[in-house]
Amino acid sequence: MKQKRYFLSESELPKQWYNLQADMPKKPQPMLSAKTKEPITVDELAKLISREAASQELNMTDRWIDIPEPVMEMYRYYRSTPLVRAYGLEDALGTPAHIYFKNESVSPVGSHKLNSALPQAYYCKQEGATNITTETGAGQWGTALSYASKVFGLECAVYQVKISYNQKPYRRSVMQAFGAQVTPSPSMSTRAGKDILTLYPNHQGSLGTAISEAVELALTTPNCKYALGSVMGHVSLHQTIIGLEAELQMQKAGEYPDVVIGCFGGGSNFSGIAFPFMRHNILDGKKTRFVAAEPESCPKLTRGKFCYDYGDESGYTPLMPMFSLGHKFCPPNIHAGGLRYHGAGVIISQLLKDGLMEAVDMSQLKTFEAGLLFAKTEGIIPAPESCHAIAAAIDEANRCKENGESKVILFNLSGHGLMDMTAYDQYLSGSLTNYSISDEDINKNIEQIK
Amino acid sequence: MKQKRYFLSESELPKQWYNLQADMPKKPQPMLSAKTKEPITVDELAKLISREAASQELNMTDRWIDIPEPVMEMYRYYRSTPLVRAYGLEDALGTPAHIYFKNESVSPVGSHKLNSALPQAYYCKQEGATNITTETGAGQWGTALSYASKVFGLECAVYQVKISYNQKPYRRSVMQAFGAQVTPSPSMSTRAGKDILTLYPNHQGSLGTAISEAVELALTTPNCKYALGSVMGHVSLHQTIIGLEAELQMQKAGEYPDVVIGCFGGGSNFSGIAFPFMRHNILDGKKTRFVAAEPESCPKLTRGKFCYDYGDESGYTPLMPMFSLGHKFCPPNIHAGGLRYHGAGVIISQLLKDGLMEAVDMSQLKTFEAGLLFAKTEGIIPAPESCHAIAAAIDEANRCKENGESKVILFNLSGHGLMDMTAYDQYLSGSLTNYSISDEDINKNIEQIK
Repeated sequence: MKQKRYFLSESELPKQWYNLQADMPKKPQPMLSAKTKEPITVDELAKLISREAASQELNMTDRWIDIPEPVMEMYRYYRSTPLVRAYGLEDALGTPAHIYFKNESVSPVGSHKLNSALPQAYYCKQEGATNITTETGAGQWGTALSYASKVFGLECAVYQVKISYNQKPYRRSVMQAFGAQVTPSPSMSTRAGKDILTLYPNHQGSLGTAISEAVELALTTPNCKYALGSVMGHVSLHQTIIGLEAELQMQKAGEYPDVVIGCFGGGSNFSGIAFPFMRHNILDGKKTRFVAAEPESCPKLTRGKFCYDYGDESGYTPLMPMFSLGHKFCPPNIHAGGLRYHGAGVIISQLLKDGLMEAVDMSQLKTFEAGLLFAKTEGIIPAPESCHAIAAAIDEANRCKENGESKVILFNLSGHGLMDMTAYDQYLSGSLTNYSISDEDINKNIEQIK
Repeated sequence: MKQKRYFLSESELPKQWYNLQADMPKKPQPMLSAKTKEPITVDELAKLISREAASQELNMTDRWIDIPEPVMEMYRYYRSTPLVRAYGLEDALGTPAHIYFKNESVSPVGSHKLNSALPQAYYCKQEGATNITTETGAGQWGTALSYASKVFGLECAVYQVKISYNQKPYRRSVMQAFGAQVTPSPSMSTRAGKDILTLYPNHQGSLGTAISEAVELALTTPNCKYALGSVMGHVSLHQTIIGLEAELQMQKAGEYPDVVIGCFGGGSNFSGIAFPFMRHNILDGKKTRFVAAEPESCPKLTRGKFCYDYGDESGYTPLMPMFSLGHKFCPPNIHAGGLRYHGAGVIISQLLKDGLMEAVDMSQLKTFEAGLLFAKTEGIIPAPESCHAIAAAIDEANRCKENGESKVILFNLSGHGLMDMTAYDQYLSGSLTNYSISDEDINKNIEQIK
């Protein structure tokens, strides 16, 4: 009997997150205060985000961080997520590779984002906040934080990138059903938004701009904290629950991955699946490859520059040492809204620089072709973001076929695409296009980085 | 530690469906051939649906029916579905009742409908069919059959009720992503559709009409079988996997339900959760109540007439002894499209007649109010159909609060509502309304029944 799915019992669920920073051969360079240009401190970060998250962000020593019991209680509600052997996809490709995916789409909000939304909301509530605010691109993160806020009793305000707000009204409705206040960004509700709309009245928004708006709201509202769904080290930390579970589940399947793949926007789901396995490369001499799959229209890992840059369009955040396309870079309106971010996160950037991971870029049409094959063979409509990981997994599997290798491929299915059917419609009707970016466009923005 | 979710291991999964017909104190009256008015035979039914399904339909003797291994293999892919203790909802209501729900929304297609789509597609394929056709109201059944057809290698054509086709384009897209041919009904592709459109050019469709179109296509196309997602006894049989699992899961929770609740359209999800528990009322003297929650705008159980009537608008199906509003009844355009059906299914109708179950009706506004409370407390956006079960469960829980009773309430969450956010938007913006039906309207249609 072919076993397709592997679960963990409640008692097997990991009770700690894994902090890769403790094991990195070269530690990341420090983030710098935007004002002083000195290395940022927990106190400074804690003005913006919860103190606990700030302290996790700068923790370079503790390998394991306890998951608070109220967060564990919520994790038990939807975790473990299934590890699935993709027999259907393997058969369709005729590959000797063994393809596994971790199905994060089964969380209540439909994506991995809840793994970090829960602890972030919990810490804010513990520390006395009454309100929390954030930005969202595709809407997955905003949905997760809306629900997590409701769970822990916080009011939540979400700035949703305008193109996504208009293209995906269902996403907004889900956040509103969870009780959140949703504002399309850029908006007239912040200085950052007004400045952009004055220059470009029809600006369709970007993650960088929406971050500026949410950060500004947090800094100017009493008892209000900001929460970020990707890029930061504490977000990657929380997401390691994915890879820690996958490690135990792969043991049940009697296999170990040769390649681990995640789509890449700011790094949350990629680091979640990759970091726990990467520790065995660093500590135990394993030779697993780690592949981040980004869109060709927002290629910070494959074509960006490693430098100090801001995390948001207006320059409110600390300066971060990272691969970036420049914080003024506004990516084309691809449907994978969650990958439309100019920078790569501090830890990931260091890992890429040090050759501990790889990156590939994917055209939009290729990702939807991969997503539809996956839907037909595995029965799940994948998020446009996740389609990047699927496309990269298919590339690996096809290489295995050419070379007659039975490699073990593991990718993260970060979320479902049930809110993104407009994109699938466009693909099926032939009206979807690719967006490539010229070196000129990239260099123009990178040159603006100070 | 509060345990929220209960699962079964693969070895604990039921391997047989439960056939309530074998245990019914009074057997249902026979269905009659539309032509001869004689009791229908397996041979006659097998012209339309698979022979195996036809034989299950008329099986009054075998209590347990084996689930074929290829169907079990697919069941293992998404089953058991979680049994969830709704602590969040209980707290919000302040009720001493224990509320459980069976979460069928986690199936790959988002609802319980896959439980019957898989065996129906499998039997058709086994018996040599190359094509399969059906109707869909809300789209849940069409989605399930589209995917099941892909799994077993059949081409699938779906007639989708026009109002739903236009209101929920995402549903259509999902079916197309699974490779199905989707046609809005009434269409000009069948005699039944042309007849209706000639009389009413702007007809928005009904399940009864869409069934007529699908049946006509099946009867006039070589190697094409018809499949139905509700109403029929073999569909209820396949859906008993829900209640059989729930029974084992309730044992793990150390409880037994005092009340079992399902929303009601044609009976598929209600019978799935109810029948396995009902056998203990019949055989072991248990006193569980079974409550079917139907919309007040389509009240066949609470206000329909028990009589012989057709299952479709054009009168292609056998005559069925059932509670009906008349096969020409076209219900108002409520958002719970899956409940917009004029009749109740032969087994259910007999059970209601014999006092073995109850029915309640729910206004549209009340169901969305209940659905939003559920979303905020349990983190899942419920389908508008499922909201009827939630509303009925809340009524029961509130009565427990008034009476200080700790009853155990179990309801079936038949599916998620992520394709139905337009309806939630309308509710949140105050533009959603109730639809009540006058006795006159009901009697007018019932009088047309011959």
